[in-house]
Amino acid sequence: MKRFAWTIALLILVTPTFADEGMWTLDNFPRDAVMDKYGVEVTDAWLEKVQSSIVRLDSGCTGSFASADGLILTNHHCARGCIAQNSSAENDLEVNGFLAESRDEEISCPSDQISVLMETEDITAKIAAAIEGLGEQEAGEARRKARTRLEQECEEASGLKCESVSLYQGGQQWLYKYKRYTDVRLVFAPEADIAAFGGDPDNFNFPRWCLDMSLMRVYEDDKPAVTPNHLSWRTEGLDPGEPMFIAGHPGSTQRLLTVNDLKFLRDTTIPHWLMRNVELRGRYAQYAKTGEEAHRTTRSPLMGLENGIKVYRKRLDALHNDGLFESKLKEEHALREAVAADPDLAAEVGSAWEDIERANATYLSFRDDFQFIEAGAAFNSSLFGYARALVRAAAEREKPNEDRLRGYTEAALPRLAQRVLAPRPVYTDLERVRLSFSLDKMREFLGPDSKFVHQILGMKSPDSLADELIDGSKLADPEVRKALWEGGMDAIEASDDPMIGLALSIDEAARALRKRYEDEVAAPSDLAYEKIAKARFAVQGTGRYPDATFTLRVTYGSHVGWMEKGEEVRPWTTVDRLFERVTGEEPFRLPEGWIGAEEQLGSDTKFNFVGTTDIVGGNSGSPVIDKDGRLVGLAFDGNIHSISGSYWFDTELNRTVSVHPQIMIRAMETIYGADHLVEEISGN
Amino acid sequence: MKRFAWTIALLILVTPTFADEGMWTLDNFPRDAVMDKYGVEVTDAWLEKVQSSIVRLDSGCTGSFASADGLILTNHHCARGCIAQNSSAENDLEVNGFLAESRDEEISCPSDQISVLMETEDITAKIAAAIEGLGEQEAGEARRKARTRLEQECEEASGLKCESVSLYQGGQQWLYKYKRYTDVRLVFAPEADIAAFGGDPDNFNFPRWCLDMSLMRVYEDDKPAVTPNHLSWRTEGLDPGEPMFIAGHPGSTQRLLTVNDLKFLRDTTIPHWLMRNVELRGRYAQYAKTGEEAHRTTRSPLMGLENGIKVYRKRLDALHNDGLFESKLKEEHALREAVAADPDLAAEVGSAWEDIERANATYLSFRDDFQFIEAGAAFNSSLFGYARALVRAAAEREKPNEDRLRGYTEAALPRLAQRVLAPRPVYTDLERVRLSFSLDKMREFLGPDSKFVHQILGMKSPDSLADELIDGSKLADPEVRKALWEGGMDAIEASDDPMIGLALSIDEAARALRKRYEDEVAAPSDLAYEKIAKARFAVQGTGRYPDATFTLRVTYGSHVGWMEKGEEVRPWTTVDRLFERVTGEEPFRLPEGWIGAEEQLGSDTKFNFVGTTDIVGGNSGSPVIDKDGRLVGLAFDGNIHSISGSYWFDTELNRTVSVHPQIMIRAMETIYGADHLVEEISGN
Repeated sequence: MKRFAWTIALLILVTPTFADEGMWTLDNFPRDAVMDKYGVEVTDAWLEKVQSSIVRLDSGCTGSFASADGLILTNHHCARGCIAQNSSAENDLEVNGFLAESRDEEISCPSDQISVLMETEDITAKIAAAIEGLGEQEAGEARRKARTRLEQECEEASGLKCESVSLYQGGQQWLYKYKRYTDVRLVFAPEADIAAFGGDPDNFNFPRWCLDMSLMRVYEDDKPAVTPNHLSWRTEGLDPGEPMFIAGHPGSTQRLLTVNDLKFLRDTTIPHWLMRNVELRGRYAQYAKTGEEAHRTTRSPLMGLENGIKVYRKRLDALHNDGLFESKLKEEHALREAVAADPDLAAEVGSAWEDIERANATYLSFRDDFQFIEAGAAFNSSLFGYARALVRAAAEREKPNEDRLRGYTEAALPRLAQRVLAPRPVYTDLERVRLSFSLDKMREFLGPDSKFVHQILGMKSPDSLADELIDGSKLADPEVRKALWEGGMDAIEASDDPMIGLALSIDEAARALRKRYEDEVAAPSDLAYEKIAKARFAVQGTGRYPDATFTLRVTYGSHVGWMEKGEEVRPWTTVDRLFERVTGEEPFRLPEGWIGAEEQLGSDTKFNFVGTTDIVGGNSGSPVIDKDGRLVGLAFDGNIHSISGSYWFDTELNRTVSVHPQIMIRAMETIYGADHLVEEISGN
Repeated sequence: MKRFAWTIALLILVTPTFADEGMWTLDNFPRDAVMDKYGVEVTDAWLEKVQSSIVRLDSGCTGSFASADGLILTNHHCARGCIAQNSSAENDLEVNGFLAESRDEEISCPSDQISVLMETEDITAKIAAAIEGLGEQEAGEARRKARTRLEQECEEASGLKCESVSLYQGGQQWLYKYKRYTDVRLVFAPEADIAAFGGDPDNFNFPRWCLDMSLMRVYEDDKPAVTPNHLSWRTEGLDPGEPMFIAGHPGSTQRLLTVNDLKFLRDTTIPHWLMRNVELRGRYAQYAKTGEEAHRTTRSPLMGLENGIKVYRKRLDALHNDGLFESKLKEEHALREAVAADPDLAAEVGSAWEDIERANATYLSFRDDFQFIEAGAAFNSSLFGYARALVRAAAEREKPNEDRLRGYTEAALPRLAQRVLAPRPVYTDLERVRLSFSLDKMREFLGPDSKFVHQILGMKSPDSLADELIDGSKLADPEVRKALWEGGMDAIEASDDPMIGLALSIDEAARALRKRYEDEVAAPSDLAYEKIAKARFAVQGTGRYPDATFTLRVTYGSHVGWMEKGEEVRPWTTVDRLFERVTGEEPFRLPEGWIGAEEQLGSDTKFNFVGTTDIVGGNSGSPVIDKDGRLVGLAFDGNIHSISGSYWFDTELNRTVSVHPQIMIRAMETIYGADHLVEEISGN
């Protein structure tokens, strides 16, 4: 640990890059470092090709165009929402898999939306001008309004979809401009038993055998979209040790947080999240045993929950690693000392670190109320989610665009409308499990004497209130939601739907909590981070990468394993060992078509592989790309050490886990008879 | 926080007592401090009276004799085991309550055992002689053997039951000698709805309204035991501000732990415990909804679990309180500096603090294996509990007494036999929930590639293995257990019971983990703590109290409330507000007999009350005693701040919560028609 701390302290002052570390924006890609280490020249053309071939699944994933006809390769777990929406007790596509024999058979993913980044624009100066000279709270509000205004102006001027993005914790402000596809269809998905072979026990582990792939297609005007920019596949994959790149949309990291914020995560945010969600996992798992339909409808939320729990548990472990925590402390000290040594900079930065500490202390005093009432932890129900969105949208749409909550601006509304109006199955009994649980936790965390608990539960128990709300609500019907969406505030106020009634009745209190959070926590913290970012740029230069923000990044590395407890981990797996791992019981069970198929697939066919690239959730579905811009893999996970990547990158241990193109092609050909798709992919 | 830290630092060097703090042994009770603060003289006679009137429920509680005929007052939650054993789907005593109209109707509590402390003997010198000059591991073993030998000699010489007790983390070694009652019967228990009114939401809260009382009776030769020493009741209770005392058996505190051990609790032990048990709570809660019998059989384990979760969550919060943690750090620094300043002492203490750090680091490397395989976290099943005890007892009984594991010595065997052989209902479906869950967690925490996971699960899933073990085992039948107990190793090896088979098959590996724990963790740590204890005595003197060890202690304080968020909390509750709190839904529902009984009971009748005494779990059921030795209350809980009492005592906030004698007497008279018991109690 000492070595690591020293390295960081030194690097702050001397050199801006780490070996294979970094989720780089395209405008600041470390071409020299890649040339030095791997002898690869990353050209403008290479980066442009990559940018235009990568897509963002707005539900939280990445994909890449695999043909000129809008075909997209992503993970199975990125298509799980669509798969679940198209499943029923009679035909469970998660169990059975799905293959469209022809384009006619491709099925709609009503909640999905896919974006391709076309342009970016630096608006740092515009935002700075908008908040110039303002106090914390006014600056917070002015920044919010400026973002909304600039997005709107951008959309009108460009005809693209514009999103404001804050990089380097506010050190840079950008507009990202996307082409957006809202007609997304499912083309191919294997069975969950092989896509997620090993289930939660194997999640974040390696060696690994998951065919975590799916194919989707974007349409325009009911025809496959024309996508001349796409990646060609190098089916044989990478050679051992070969350099590799991953382009995608890493969701969120916290590497530039202050030590006080990390401590808040360690002592408050993560333990509280785990306390609630680990218990919910127990409820789901037990509920799933009550019948086949319960089992089916719980599988997808349970997998998502288990993934989150593993992530948070390992993040907590990372934050309990004293050595690494101390290195953060030293890094912060070094930066603060450098700031203190420069009177002008010191004056500009002011009490930024103390401001964050103060914001956290304030937050702690009302965090439980905020989490349960405004952030919705008390109302774990998709019906409530609809109700909240309908109530808020009705109120916000009556306001001028710049005065609205950020989630309800003109730029944000189309996505919200899609989410609210898309037909999705609502499973009443599962809703009951979720909602009664979350109401119960509200009472537990806020205490039986909380005014919110009195207002919401009154004389009812969590179970009886959940039953009343769920049995009484009609919001599962998309037509009912449509009428309320279109009817605006009049329709909302006239509604006798109990879920709408609940959302309405707590809206004022919830908004007050949100306002308090924005004014007393977010505003001072945002302003402080902007100052710290300026200090970083002044002291460390600009040759560093920003934390992940679910925007396009490229990371580089090489196809090598790591040392685990003194043993070298071979960086790829092959088909033969999959068959040794099968027990026949979930989650180590194969789909029928795979049983006895070892020879067909080829014992030596490569299955999954690892590399040193620096990725995080949101990169799921990202292509692994070779130096010539060809697809050589499909990222779907990290090894267990990768989870600490939220806070720092450990070159020795952190590895990306990907599906090898050999098994994707071979399985499509031999198990699934998807030759037409193999042809479409290879025909490029 | 600063003030508190300073106070501690000062006190270490200057004066040994804190205001109202301490769980004092009777030989070292701070009579002067009580006289100074409260003007009360605590005489030998007072202490002797108390000692002979207090009983220990060996299941983990305290009680007090309430008449000369062996009648014992304790908490309802202390009798819950007995109540559950005597309940059935037809007559659920938890729901309906229980009253023996006459002594003939008193019902047996087959798993209970009650002990009264008769004498104590200091064996510090004997133990010291036994380990003199030995290395860590040898000392660990020699200490264990000496304890077993001294207990056995004591039992033979005294005719009493002897237990060795280590006080001040090994600074003193004692033999505690008990009179033991094994015929325990239930006399009276109210309904759980009023005994635990407010359930988990109100647990550890105050204001509070729980009639958490029960009456039991000990028998000898099938006749009520003769117990001339008992407490008389002062039914009107304490005056506000009046001094009060609590005598009982506090279970365990960690106030003298090193900072490294506290950190281990904070970062490892408590989070891991919570991760598992919070999820189990979710499973239980959901399982309880599947039917009436599931609800009934889960209630008691769920309540226990919820209590534990609240305790651990609040302990974690306490350990995350930086100010208090720093005060511990300062205290340790002060002690270490004082040691360093004295060369002789420094030589004696050596590397004690570092030794504990090393022991923890070693433990961390195999802790998960130890917890799941030896400590049994993988096998959450009462059937497995029987199997483990039967297998181990058979093997251990073949060895000389001193060579046995401590839980299987001649002194320990009678209690173990009682536990294994007593008839207790085993609920098959609940066993399934528990065991499949714990096997699943074993796979999750140890990983699917662990050798233990391979050995135990093989090709089976946690569900299928749990079914196989539970459906195949006959250990629910006390006769089967009796035959295996009496048949010894031959019977065990001949058994085809799958649970016995599992316990046998992992016994070697489990014992190896235990040996490793004893040699590499407990032995160095015990020796280090003995040295630190010596250092404490040398630097701080002997005017302090030892951590709780489930042995007899007396604590003092006064009947006052505290300030909560700027508001003064009145130190008692009355009947009227109970009726305002009722919602009619569990857990804020009254038993039928209570509905409309406000007038009968008297609106002003006192219900629960608080005071500044220093107690912890194990004190449940302890009498609150006034300066004249009369019972003025029944301790059953602490307020929420009391949970940090595991690590330090906060005089400002930590409060004991007790049942007031007014409501006990009034409810017995008016609601339950238990005049014969009121008469027995008052007739003293």
